[in-house]
Amino acid sequence: MKKVKVYVTLRESVLDPQGSAVMGALHSMDYKEVKDVRIGKFLELQIEEGIRDIDSVIKEMCEKLLANTVIEDYRYEVEEAVSK
Amino acid sequence: MKKVKVYVTLRESVLDPQGSAVMGALHSMDYKEVKDVRIGKFLELQIEEGIRDIDSVIKEMCEKLLANTVIEDYRYEVEEAVSK
Repeated sequence: MKKVKVYVTLRESVLDPQGSAVMGALHSMDYKEVKDVRIGKFLELQIEEGIRDIDSVIKEMCEKLLANTVIEDYRYEVEEAVSK
Repeated sequence: MKKVKVYVTLRESVLDPQGSAVMGALHSMDYKEVKDVRIGKFLELQIEEGIRDIDSVIKEMCEKLLANTVIEDYRYEVEEAVSK
């Protein structure tokens, strides 16, 4: 079993209204030192090792479902899952 | 300027319907090897260094606004921002 962490973020050139709203809220709470906020998604997947190469499986899943590659970038990390 | 990455995730004991929905979608796309999906938020903040200690500022912001500590955990990393 592998633990895969996927980070999906908006591309640099894409406006982030959710981030702007959070920054506005932080400024109104007097955290004026915050100069920029960008918000993305963080996914943690547990994947059973099979016949298919895990990297190509993850890339496929990201391109097809998890990220909208027109406006989003993604990156991922694969870790050995620790059994509890 | 510091670049701060904040990861907000649901606590282990809290159900994640969004994650279950994504897992269902992945299964229907024939990615049966995926055994669990948990979805969280990923925030990237640019913070100007001031008089206040950056760690305590980040913790305060997380507790007050960015994470709901009743159902969510957070962790963060501070990096030196690279000027472009």
